[in-house]
Amino acid sequence: METSVKVKDVVVLGGTHGDEMSGVCLVRKWLNGPPLTAETCEVIPYLSNLEAIKLCRRYKDCDLNRQFSKENLKSVLADGELSYEVKRAREMNEKFADTSGSTFILDLHNTTSNSQVCLIVEESDGFSLHMCRYIQQAFSEGVCRIWILGGGVEYGDTRCMVKRGIAIEVGPQPQAVVRADIMDLQERAVKLSLEFIDKYNKGVCFDSCQIEGYKTFKKVDFPRDSQGDIAGMIHQNLQDQDWKPLTRSSTVFRRFNGDDVTLGDVTDDVGVEESVYPMFVNEAAYYEKGIAFHLTNKVRMTLPALKFE
Amino acid sequence: METSVKVKDVVVLGGTHGDEMSGVCLVRKWLNGPPLTAETCEVIPYLSNLEAIKLCRRYKDCDLNRQFSKENLKSVLADGELSYEVKRAREMNEKFADTSGSTFILDLHNTTSNSQVCLIVEESDGFSLHMCRYIQQAFSEGVCRIWILGGGVEYGDTRCMVKRGIAIEVGPQPQAVVRADIMDLQERAVKLSLEFIDKYNKGVCFDSCQIEGYKTFKKVDFPRDSQGDIAGMIHQNLQDQDWKPLTRSSTVFRRFNGDDVTLGDVTDDVGVEESVYPMFVNEAAYYEKGIAFHLTNKVRMTLPALKFE
Repeated sequence: METSVKVKDVVVLGGTHGDEMSGVCLVRKWLNGPPLTAETCEVIPYLSNLEAIKLCRRYKDCDLNRQFSKENLKSVLADGELSYEVKRAREMNEKFADTSGSTFILDLHNTTSNSQVCLIVEESDGFSLHMCRYIQQAFSEGVCRIWILGGGVEYGDTRCMVKRGIAIEVGPQPQAVVRADIMDLQERAVKLSLEFIDKYNKGVCFDSCQIEGYKTFKKVDFPRDSQGDIAGMIHQNLQDQDWKPLTRSSTVFRRFNGDDVTLGDVTDDVGVEESVYPMFVNEAAYYEKGIAFHLTNKVRMTLPALKFE
Repeated sequence: METSVKVKDVVVLGGTHGDEMSGVCLVRKWLNGPPLTAETCEVIPYLSNLEAIKLCRRYKDCDLNRQFSKENLKSVLADGELSYEVKRAREMNEKFADTSGSTFILDLHNTTSNSQVCLIVEESDGFSLHMCRYIQQAFSEGVCRIWILGGGVEYGDTRCMVKRGIAIEVGPQPQAVVRADIMDLQERAVKLSLEFIDKYNKGVCFDSCQIEGYKTFKKVDFPRDSQGDIAGMIHQNLQDQDWKPLTRSSTVFRRFNGDDVTLGDVTDDVGVEESVYPMFVNEAAYYEKGIAFHLTNKVRMTLPALKFE
C-alpha cells in the first residue's frame, strides 16, 4: 500500500516547450475561463516557458524541461549569470516545490511522432502508475501507452519539483500547430487525471493490478555524414509506426543514396528472435539531440493496492 | 507562341526556409553527389538561407522569400545596416539574376498543410504554366495542384531574380522533420521539371491546352482574443482537407469554448451557391502572419502552344 497523502493541488503545465501548442492553448483556455476544476483539490493551470511561448519555439536559451535538477535549482550563481530557463525553473520551483506528495504535476507535451497518448511516469511513483492505468483504460485499445522511466536517472524535468506527477505527450502534431484531434486527446487525458485524483481523495480503493508499459533501452541516431548532417531518414516502413514491433531485419532508415538500413545494421542490442518497440519516431526536437527514435521493451509491473485514508 | 529562349541554367533552391527539410536534404544530397543533371542544361543545386538552415528555423531575422523585391535589392544601405536575409538576397541576386529567361528557378518548399504537391506559378509565365501541366499530368489524379499567382503583385520571392520559375510546395510535413514520402514527391516533381526543360530545349512542341488551377481570393485568420492570441483552431472537418470544396455552411473553426464557426460566419465573400477551395490549412508559419487558410477559386486558363526554335 502506498503512503497516504491527499492531493491538494494539481499544477497543469502548458508550454514547458513553447511550440507544443496543445498545452499552451489548453492552459490559456482554462486561465481565461471557464476554469478547469476538480471536486477535491485545487487545479492550477500554468504556462511554463513564457519567453519560448512568445517566440513559439521549444526554448529560448536551453530546454526548460532539463533545468529542474537539484544542481540548477541550488546554483550559487546570481540571476544575471543564468540562462532564462534556469531562472524560470527556479521561479517555478519556489512556487510549486513540494516533498509531501500533496502537489501533483501534469505536464502537457506534444510530439511530431505518432505517439497518440503517451503517459510518462517514473517507475518508483506508484500513485502515478495507478493514475496512468486509470487513464489508459478509459481510452480505446491502442490509443494510450505508458512510458516508464526508471533506474533512478534524474532528467531535471518539471516533475523533479514534486513527489508525484506525469507528463502527457500527445502526437502527431507539428511544432507550432494546434490540431483539434490532438488537443481533444490531451484534454481528455487531463480530465481523466483529475477524475482519478478525486476518486483517490474520496477514499476509493484502487486494487493491486498489473500494468503494461514500455521502457527505453536504446536511443538510435540518424545515419550522419562527416559534417554531422543527417545522411538518411526514417524509412517509410517505420514512419508513423510508433509502438509497432520491430525485429533485427526491419528496415528503419533509408540513406539519401537509396540504401536501406535495418535495425540489425544499427544495433547489436536486439536479439535474433526478439521484438522491440520504437517510440518518438521522427520527433522534430530530437534531431539536435541525435535521436531518430527510441527503442523500448515491453515491461509488466505489479502495482500494490492504493487507497487514501 | 511564347518567346523562344533556351534554358541554360536551372537553379534548384533548398532551404529558402531553413526548417523545410525536403529541399535542404535534397540539395545537400545532390551537392554531395551523385549530382542532379539534365541533358540540355546545367543544374545548380543551391542552399538559400544558410543561417536559418543552421538554426533549423524558417529564418534568422526575416523571411528570405520576401526579400527579393527591387527595393531591397537596390537599397542604398550598407551591408552592415541590413538584416542577414536582405544581404543574402543581394548575394543570391548577384549570382543568379537573369532577365533573358535562360535561368530557371525551382524553389523547394514544405508546408504543414495537407497540400500534397502544390506548384506555385505566376499567371504571366506561360513557360512555367506549361511545365506545371507537364508535372501534374505525370502524377496520379489529385496529387498535384497548380496555385496561380496573378494581378501583378510582387511578393519579393526568389523567383523575382529571373523571368521563369516555380516553387514546389509539398506537404504535410512538420517543420524541422524529413519524411520519406514527402521527399519522394518533392524529388519526383524536380525530376519532371528537368525532363520538361530537356524536351523544351530539344524543340518538342507543347500544344495549346487548358489548365486548371487555383487562385487565392481571401486569406482567413484564426479567431483571436483581445490579446491577439488564437481563440480557436481549425475545425476537425477542415483539418487536412486542403483543396476540398467548402460552402458557406461548412464548419471551419472550433473556438476553444466549443462553439463551431462556419465559413459564412467569417466571410461574406462566398456566395450561397458557391464552392470555394481551401489551401495552406493550418500551415505553422502562417499563424504569425494571421492566416489560418487561404480561400481559392478554381480557374481555367488556355495556354498558347510552346516551342523553342
